[in-house]
Parts: sequence; structure tokens; C-alpha cells
Amino acid sequence: MANNDADGVGAGVEWPQGFLGYAGHAGVRRNGNDLSIIASERPAVSAAVFTRSRFAGPSVVLSRRHAADQRMSAIVTVAANANVATGAEGERNAAELAALVGELLRIPAERVLVSSTGVIGRQLPMAPLRAHLGGDGAGEAGAGGTVAGARDFDASPLAVAGAMMTTDTHAKVSSRTVGGARVVGVAKGVGMIEPDMATMLAYLVTDAEVGPIELDNALRSAVDRTFNCLSVDTDTSTSDTVALLANGAAGPVDPDAFAEAVHAVCLELTEQLARDGEGATKLLRVVVEGAASPGQAKRIAKSVLNSPLVKTAVHGADPNWGRVVMAVGKNTEHEEDLAITPEKTTVRFGAMEVYPRATGEEELARLVEIMRRDEVEIGVTLGLGEDAATVYGCDLSDGYVRINADYTT
Amino acid sequence: MANNDADGVGAGVEWPQGFLGYAGHAGVRRNGNDLSIIASERPAVSAAVFTRSRFAGPSVVLSRRHAADQRMSAIVTVAANANVATGAEGERNAAELAALVGELLRIPAERVLVSSTGVIGRQLPMAPLRAHLGGDGAGEAGAGGTVAGARDFDASPLAVAGAMMTTDTHAKVSSRTVGGARVVGVAKGVGMIEPDMATMLAYLVTDAEVGPIELDNALRSAVDRTFNCLSVDTDTSTSDTVALLANGAAGPVDPDAFAEAVHAVCLELTEQLARDGEGATKLLRVVVEGAASPGQAKRIAKSVLNSPLVKTAVHGADPNWGRVVMAVGKNTEHEEDLAITPEKTTVRFGAMEVYPRATGEEELARLVEIMRRDEVEIGVTLGLGEDAATVYGCDLSDGYVRINADYTT
Repeated sequence: MANNDADGVGAGVEWPQGFLGYAGHAGVRRNGNDLSIIASERPAVSAAVFTRSRFAGPSVVLSRRHAADQRMSAIVTVAANANVATGAEGERNAAELAALVGELLRIPAERVLVSSTGVIGRQLPMAPLRAHLGGDGAGEAGAGGTVAGARDFDASPLAVAGAMMTTDTHAKVSSRTVGGARVVGVAKGVGMIEPDMATMLAYLVTDAEVGPIELDNALRSAVDRTFNCLSVDTDTSTSDTVALLANGAAGPVDPDAFAEAVHAVCLELTEQLARDGEGATKLLRVVVEGAASPGQAKRIAKSVLNSPLVKTAVHGADPNWGRVVMAVGKNTEHEEDLAITPEKTTVRFGAMEVYPRATGEEELARLVEIMRRDEVEIGVTLGLGEDAATVYGCDLSDGYVRINADYTT
Repeated sequence: MANNDADGVGAGVEWPQGFLGYAGHAGVRRNGNDLSIIASERPAVSAAVFTRSRFAGPSVVLSRRHAADQRMSAIVTVAANANVATGAEGERNAAELAALVGELLRIPAERVLVSSTGVIGRQLPMAPLRAHLGGDGAGEAGAGGTVAGARDFDASPLAVAGAMMTTDTHAKVSSRTVGGARVVGVAKGVGMIEPDMATMLAYLVTDAEVGPIELDNALRSAVDRTFNCLSVDTDTSTSDTVALLANGAAGPVDPDAFAEAVHAVCLELTEQLARDGEGATKLLRVVVEGAASPGQAKRIAKSVLNSPLVKTAVHGADPNWGRVVMAVGKNTEHEEDLAITPEKTTVRFGAMEVYPRATGEEELARLVEIMRRDEVEIGVTLGLGEDAATVYGCDLSDGYVRINADYTT
């Protein structure tokens, strides 16, 4: 079924048949690639989910429109500028970007998904973008040249993921085979992460032949259990986008195996995003079982995952398990949570139960060892029902504060 | 009407007529006072609100019972141990503590409010507490002696507030006169602060003559607009308690003036708590106006106040106002928030509008100056209605992480 081609590293992963990548430096930021394109050589079907933020930027608004008929075949991403809170000028810029990429690839602008990620409240630098994409016929001095045509579309998934990064410390790539086809995903995002319907930016492409409804179902089901269970800092981005393009080059595959491969790629990218959360030194996984509803399971799990006191304890390997109890108990807004009691609840770190079982000095020392690992799993059982949820995040370090106290300056 | 006796400092503030304070070192922690008592010399009426946490500790459970008939006249606080997640033994210990203080003061145990604050999941050290409170007739060596009787009840509000501290860096005291009477409040709390119905620990005493219903109304109305609008880190304590005792020694006062004095003391303590949030270097105040409902105003205000990205930007004086826009836009769970639009929203820092008004280099430099002050106010107007809310918090610094990464070790 789903095999891991890449061991989570991304080096050596190639695009599925009929997909190409481009990564270049257009001059949006001073150094490093900041413009990337993923394109199918043949018509594709697509599925996509976007941020629900009330301040979704013009790029998201445009892409949501383009996504509606599920026929997108290219994705362009500008890194270092979010194109959010930019008004009518921002809308014009997003539309021009789609048109420029459409001309370059000789497809309608409506087939192009436009994403931008970075600082909020600044206009996109259209002059260098225009020059780079060939819209005025020549590259600007110092802007790193232009896209000369399909011969430059030789960027690997890793190179494209690299060009999408902002404060990410490494590129996120994942890949699975399914029958004779493959599913390849790239993602970026380290802060402002608590997606709701979608995460920062994650793109999946496949050469499997899949219909639009099946594609949409596979993506939404996977996103709900992966990216939507991820939180670095409870802050929901204005630019979150997840898209999946299928160009059919490898022919049909088993639908269940396909859905499983999509889920596996989404999960691997989710754990990569969590582990690279701003300032993060560890992956934190919280599993809630015995909940009265799926909603309760996820709510309580997120409450533990997002507690700054739990996150700092995990960072310092402080065996202060009482903070997990606190984070479970503080949920009082929903009627069903009032059934949670200290008597029915248990808490574990890894395989070690810490509540209600008493913890002596020796056990606390063992707990410190468990918390020192680079992956920490906290388990909570509520004893109220049969529902469960797993959510993904990271520890909170002084690195997060340092990164964000002077991001724009 | 309400005059500030103390200029927010607390030195020189004395108890209202008929109240006494005790502060001592019982040996719950190695150094510093850890046991305090506030007692009325005459019968008092009382009002109190407690944490709604599902993991409220035995001390809170007992005190909630004692508070029911509004006749408490003493408050005992143990610092450095929360007595939470301690089961049946924790319940017995809380009851014994009330009984010991009742014997000492010659009042029924049911007139004593018991609070404990500190690490979760450890039993109270009853032997030194018993010895200190005179329950076994002698102090233990090194435990700092015993309460010898009323002659030791000479601790000022500042000394009592000091004995209540955990990771607080300074004691919180506030005082107002109202007619011939006074309202004095003490509080503690710097982390695990997002109260819901009550805050960490805050006690108010007054010699005004006030009936139980009026007392309760004055407290709840004040708490709702002060402590319940405070958040340091979104984590709700298992021990939150606010109590107000009135012993009538100064006779009756104007009810409106009394309510106003209670509100003023609560507000001043709230701002003191926010400013002393763990690792905090600044007071952060968020004002939302033009909301469609009071609930929406408070929800959006808290969303901005609690955004780690806003808090770190305020810490570093990074003029990244786009994060406020993000924190407003991420609220999509409530139907009425879907009416929020970029077009109707405005954002200001202090008196300076930053959105939608364009911000050039010069304006960003001015914004940095505003953000460098030790009090930062962010204002948001939603343009949807007439409701407003003000909430109180602090910046997020690497100090918060350092304090909490190794709290128990």
C-alpha cells in the first residue's frame, strides 16, 4: 500500500509524471529563492481548502474563485510577502500574477492558484515579479534573471519547498506510491499556525487518475485528521491553503489506497511542520481517548497542546504533569465538558501513567527522561465515551519569542 | 468618591477597621513566608467567586461550600502548594486547615475560606502546618515558630500579599475610601492566568456595612469587568478565588459609591497582575469598540490580547501591526463574527491609526516609539454595533519561557 519513498527527508523525491517545478529569485526578499511554480504539463483536476480567516488576503480570495470548478493545473507561490490587508491594489496584483503565470504556461489565468506568504500589510513588489515572469520582456538587474521557458522548469520538490519557506528552517517534502502512481507533497509554515480547514501552504500533486469528487473527498478527509490537528501557536494564518492536483498520467488506482496515500503524505507533512514550529526543539503529540464526542476529543487535545505552561514544561523537560490536568480542567464553555471529572480522568506521558497514580521521586526522574526525548506524546483518557483525537504541535522555547519579537525589523 | 490611597504601591496601606493580618513561614517552601491569614475581629458578611475548572482542588471545593451562606470572616492562604489533584487526602487536609484556623480564631471552621496556590499534584505538608498553627502545641525546629495568638496578627496588607506570592515579583495591594469606610484588596498571580468567573487569588475587605446581596452584586459586577478581562497566558488556574469580606465597623455607605470603590480596587489589582505577568515587561490593554454584542467585543479583544504573535511583537516593539489584523480575522467559530470585514475594521496603537491608513517608513518609526512604552494600548473598531470591551494582559518574553521551563525542578 503506502510506502515511504523519502524517509521524511525529501532529497531524491521527484515529481509524479507530467509535473514540473520552478524555483527562482525574483527579488521579493533580498536573498534566496522567493518565487516558485508547480505545473502540470496536461490538464488536471484539483481540490483545495483555504483559511477561514475574515482577513483572508486577495491571493486567497482569487484562488478560492479559481478553485471552484476543480480544474487548476498550476500553483504559483510568492514568499516573504503575504499580500494581506492590501485592499484593491492587492486584488489587482494577485490577478496580474495569475495572468502572468497563465501566459508563461499558455493556460487560462483561471487555472492558476496564487499563494503569497510573509509579512502582512505590504503591497507585492510587482515590478521585479513582472520582469522575472517575463511580462515586460526583460529581467531587472540584480533580480536574478527571468523564467526563460519550460527549460527552467527543472526544480525538484525539495527546491520548490525551499523557495516557499519564510522562517522555516528546512523544506518539507513527503511522497508515497499508490499502485503505478505517486502522491508528492510540499509544505511550508512554522508560525501563525492553528489552521482551521487548511494549514499554511501545502501542495500535493499526483499522476493518479482521480475524479474531482473522489479527489475532494480524499483531500478533505486527510486535512481534517492532519493539518487541522496542527497548532504551533494558536494563531490562524490569513493565507492558509492546501491544494491537490491530479493529472492522470499514471492511470487509475485503487480509491482506498489513494485516500490512504494522501492521508500519509498529509500526516508526514503535518509532523514535519510541527517539528519545525518556530523555536521548536520537539514534536509534541497529544492523544485524547474516551471522549463523549469527536469534537470534545479534539477540543481537549488542543487545550493541552496549546497550553503555554504545558509547552514550556515540555521544552524544559520539567516533570510538572499537573499542568496537563489544569489544561484539561479549564474547558468549561461546552456543556459536555462539565462531565469531565478528576475521578474518571487519567494522564500519561509516553507509556508512563502520571495521574492518578502517585508519582514519587524515582518516577519523576523517569518522567524527566521521557520528556527529554525529541518526540513527546501526552495521553489523556476522559472515561466518558468512545471518541478519540490526535493533535500535533511543538514545545514553546525562548527561540519562538526571539524569532517573533523582531520579525519585520 | 473613590480616592486612591496608595498610588498603586501598597506600602502604607492599612486594613479597614476590625481586620487583622498574619504572615508567617510554616515551612511549605524553603524560604520566605508561605502562610497568611486575613481575619475580621467581628462577624462579617462575605461574597466570593471561584474557578470553574473541572479540576478545581479540594481547597476550592471546601471554600465554595463555606462561601454558600455568605458568613465567612477569615481567609487562610498556603503558598507554594496548590492542593490540586490530591484526592481524598487533599480533602482531609483542606478541612483540617480550616479547623486549625477556626480554633486559633475561635470561630467555626465553616467561617474560614481556605486557599492554596503553587505546584499541582503534591499533598500539603500537614506536619509543619499543624505545628505552625498550634495544632500540636509546638513549632518544629526550622519551621519558623508558631502563631502564638492575636499578638502576632500584625501583618500589613503588603505583608500578607507578600506571603501569598509564588513566582510574583512584587506584592499587589490596592485601596479606596468610600464615605467613612475603606475597601482594601490584596492579590497574587503571574502565570496560569485566564480567569473565568474569578482570578488567581484576590481578597478584598471593607469595614463598610453592606448586606450580603449588595455585596455579592458589587463583587460580581466588578470581577466581570476586571479579573475576568485579564489574561497572561490563556491557562486557567485550578485555584482561582476572589473573596470580599465586609464587617460593618464603619457603618453604612452609599451603595453606588461602594460598588465603584470595589470596581476601582479590582481594576487596580487587575492591572498590577497583568503588569507582573510571568516574564512581562509591559502592560498590554486591548480595547474593542463597535462590536455587535458584549460577547463579541470581549472575544475579539481576548483574541488579540492572547495572540502569541501580537504579544511577542509588543515585547520587541516590532511594528508588525498586521498581526492584530490576523488575530481579529481568525475568529470564525461564532456566527456573528462572520460579519467582520477588512473594509469595516480599523486598528490603532495608542492614538495612531495603523489600518486601513497606509503606513510609510516614517509612520512605522513612530509606531516603534509607541510600542516601546511600558504600557501599550491596541484599539480595534469593528463597525458592527455599539458594544465595547477592554481586556488586560502583557507581552510575551523569553522570561516567560525561562520561568516555566523549569518551574518544579
